[in-house]
Amino acid sequence: MTTWVAVPAGSGFGVDNLPYGVYSPPGAPPRVGVRIGNHVLDLAAALDDPVFAAPTLNPFMAQGSRRWRTVREQVVELLSDERHRARVDAALSPVAAVVLSLPFAVADFVDYYSSLHHACNVGRMFRPDEEPLKPNWRHLPVGYHGRSGTVVASGTPIVRPAGQWRAPGDDAPSFGPTRRLDIEAEVGFVVGSPSRMSQPVPVDRFAEHVFGVVLCNDWSARDIQAWEYVPLGPYLGKSFATSISPWVVPLAALDAARIRPVAQDPEPLPYLRGGDWALDLTLEVRLNGEVVSRPPFADMYWTAAQQLAHMTVNGASVRTGDLFASGTVSGAVREQRGSLLELTWNGTDPLVLADGSTRTFLEDGDMVTIAATAPGAGAGLIDLGDVTGTIKPARPI
Amino acid sequence: MTTWVAVPAGSGFGVDNLPYGVYSPPGAPPRVGVRIGNHVLDLAAALDDPVFAAPTLNPFMAQGSRRWRTVREQVVELLSDERHRARVDAALSPVAAVVLSLPFAVADFVDYYSSLHHACNVGRMFRPDEEPLKPNWRHLPVGYHGRSGTVVASGTPIVRPAGQWRAPGDDAPSFGPTRRLDIEAEVGFVVGSPSRMSQPVPVDRFAEHVFGVVLCNDWSARDIQAWEYVPLGPYLGKSFATSISPWVVPLAALDAARIRPVAQDPEPLPYLRGGDWALDLTLEVRLNGEVVSRPPFADMYWTAAQQLAHMTVNGASVRTGDLFASGTVSGAVREQRGSLLELTWNGTDPLVLADGSTRTFLEDGDMVTIAATAPGAGAGLIDLGDVTGTIKPARPI
Repeated sequence: MTTWVAVPAGSGFGVDNLPYGVYSPPGAPPRVGVRIGNHVLDLAAALDDPVFAAPTLNPFMAQGSRRWRTVREQVVELLSDERHRARVDAALSPVAAVVLSLPFAVADFVDYYSSLHHACNVGRMFRPDEEPLKPNWRHLPVGYHGRSGTVVASGTPIVRPAGQWRAPGDDAPSFGPTRRLDIEAEVGFVVGSPSRMSQPVPVDRFAEHVFGVVLCNDWSARDIQAWEYVPLGPYLGKSFATSISPWVVPLAALDAARIRPVAQDPEPLPYLRGGDWALDLTLEVRLNGEVVSRPPFADMYWTAAQQLAHMTVNGASVRTGDLFASGTVSGAVREQRGSLLELTWNGTDPLVLADGSTRTFLEDGDMVTIAATAPGAGAGLIDLGDVTGTIKPARPI
Repeated sequence: MTTWVAVPAGSGFGVDNLPYGVYSPPGAPPRVGVRIGNHVLDLAAALDDPVFAAPTLNPFMAQGSRRWRTVREQVVELLSDERHRARVDAALSPVAAVVLSLPFAVADFVDYYSSLHHACNVGRMFRPDEEPLKPNWRHLPVGYHGRSGTVVASGTPIVRPAGQWRAPGDDAPSFGPTRRLDIEAEVGFVVGSPSRMSQPVPVDRFAEHVFGVVLCNDWSARDIQAWEYVPLGPYLGKSFATSISPWVVPLAALDAARIRPVAQDPEPLPYLRGGDWALDLTLEVRLNGEVVSRPPFADMYWTAAQQLAHMTVNGASVRTGDLFASGTVSGAVREQRGSLLELTWNGTDPLVLADGSTRTFLEDGDMVTIAATAPGAGAGLIDLGDVTGTIKPARPI
């Protein structure tokens, strides 16, 4: 497909992508837009539909997968046929001139743990005397609920959290700002169409419910997490903030990125079989502008379709705006690990940056950006945009 | 205080209580009401304020604690002074003639684990070779996020969930309806006024943020939970449903129920000290109408004020509609345990019911009701209402 809109050479925001976001033009209220090249198209204006005048994608996402398809076709038509040029031009703004906000109101937030490499690395570090994987790990996508009220837009400053942790050899915990502030590079899936209670979503109905994909940085305080997480799981070590990228890339833009899932051994239970939704996304983690890792999403053990089937198999419903994230994406080698915990092996093997400085965990002022791309049609590229955040000092205690 | 409205002798819904709920008169849309005796007062009509015409308490709760106090005074005035009789009479409906619904839209749902007796009982059963309490338990209120999208109104049927569990001695998991469906009798606290990110709520500002109290039944599938919960905590074993009571009792109605918190040893960190919000509530668990337990909320180790301070100490914000529950309320003796897991010691010591039948875990058709009362002013009583649910058979697999 081609477009008459000027799209820079090599841009991953061509007419094959068309991700949705929420933006505010200068002095105007937020609205839904579609990104094309370095511009954003005001959908309420271009399509004359008030569902896009909302400050979140939720009302549109709730209209369901048939409607998502229709709107995508309409946008492609507008951007491809020069006859629409006058109308569309009036609804385009340069991305650089607008403010991007959280693209959807988050209902429930679930975080999985679906990278075999990540789970094994964490197991080896946190429980060195045990098998790295718990017995359930290869039978179900292990996950837990996170805090949806602290999912924030890319660019939101991240204040170093305070909390309890226990120093090695101490009986009692200490209190203060975390000393082990970390990232987790993840891919998040956004539910558009709700399901009903007691009606599980089978793996092969994934695309009827999931609207699209964002990038997530699930900021983590490893010292707080290590002390608190038994027996009910992570809580304050994660709940202070999760950042997500501004552009929700629709599943329809990821057709060329679909690949064969990795082989699962043992074969999972019937409700987890199939659902061919592995995706060849390449993530990139940048620390103060320097690439420190390129985690391969293609290596994930559990797919998002399996995660959704699992999430609902007990009769739980999903809602418009539910976000479920993959868990840290880590590949087989060091340069592919999606957390500093793994990149520095729990701080024992610091990263050496280009300027000669070293890092174990994040320092105040550090800026972390997670970006990703996917193969598009032909030689094209789909850009998932990026999610960024800068660490601010802890509040005074 | 007295009221001219006919309140049955011994009712815990006198003018000292005045809990809020959402109800629909026959053929009319849902609205906010206050319960007085066996009637409910239409607040939008009585106070001529559209904030109460909403289908949830959220808009009113978001107005803040000063406003909550003013409205309570206005309602007391309406119900106490006969001059308002004509106007109020027109806005009263018998509770038996209306449909009660979920009283508020649940934002984030957090579940704590704050009964020492419960935590010790569970530890002994699930980890018999270890100390029953993990090292963190006496230093912080252990908690985790639950699924807010499946918090349901009292009376909603509970379909027996299916899932994975592993039978003793087996390597691989089985799949099917849970065989260990359980209850958890809990008290939930409802956030009215939001807080800001990076601005923790100290223990002594509890009443500025928390609007009131509901009863919760955190339905649990013990076999699913036991298999899935390492290392990230409970997920599908809990996420299929949590039922809450229809009446949110405002904190102001619980003044006479405030008691000295239990002594904490060791003394907690400074941010968890104080916040004198222990409450003398007596819960009652009924199985098919028969009282099987009377859990004493007065015995809880961590208070709700401490839970809120902990939840926000890392900078996480709370929102209007956040629900945080106490965790299972269990006392020191068997007749005070708030789950079948504990009442039957993991199914090894069945309950014998009045009709001679026995129970380990719940059977299809079983109805569970959790009710509670608190001391009111003078010899009065505050009724927290009840939360009920009946088990329906699993969907066909």
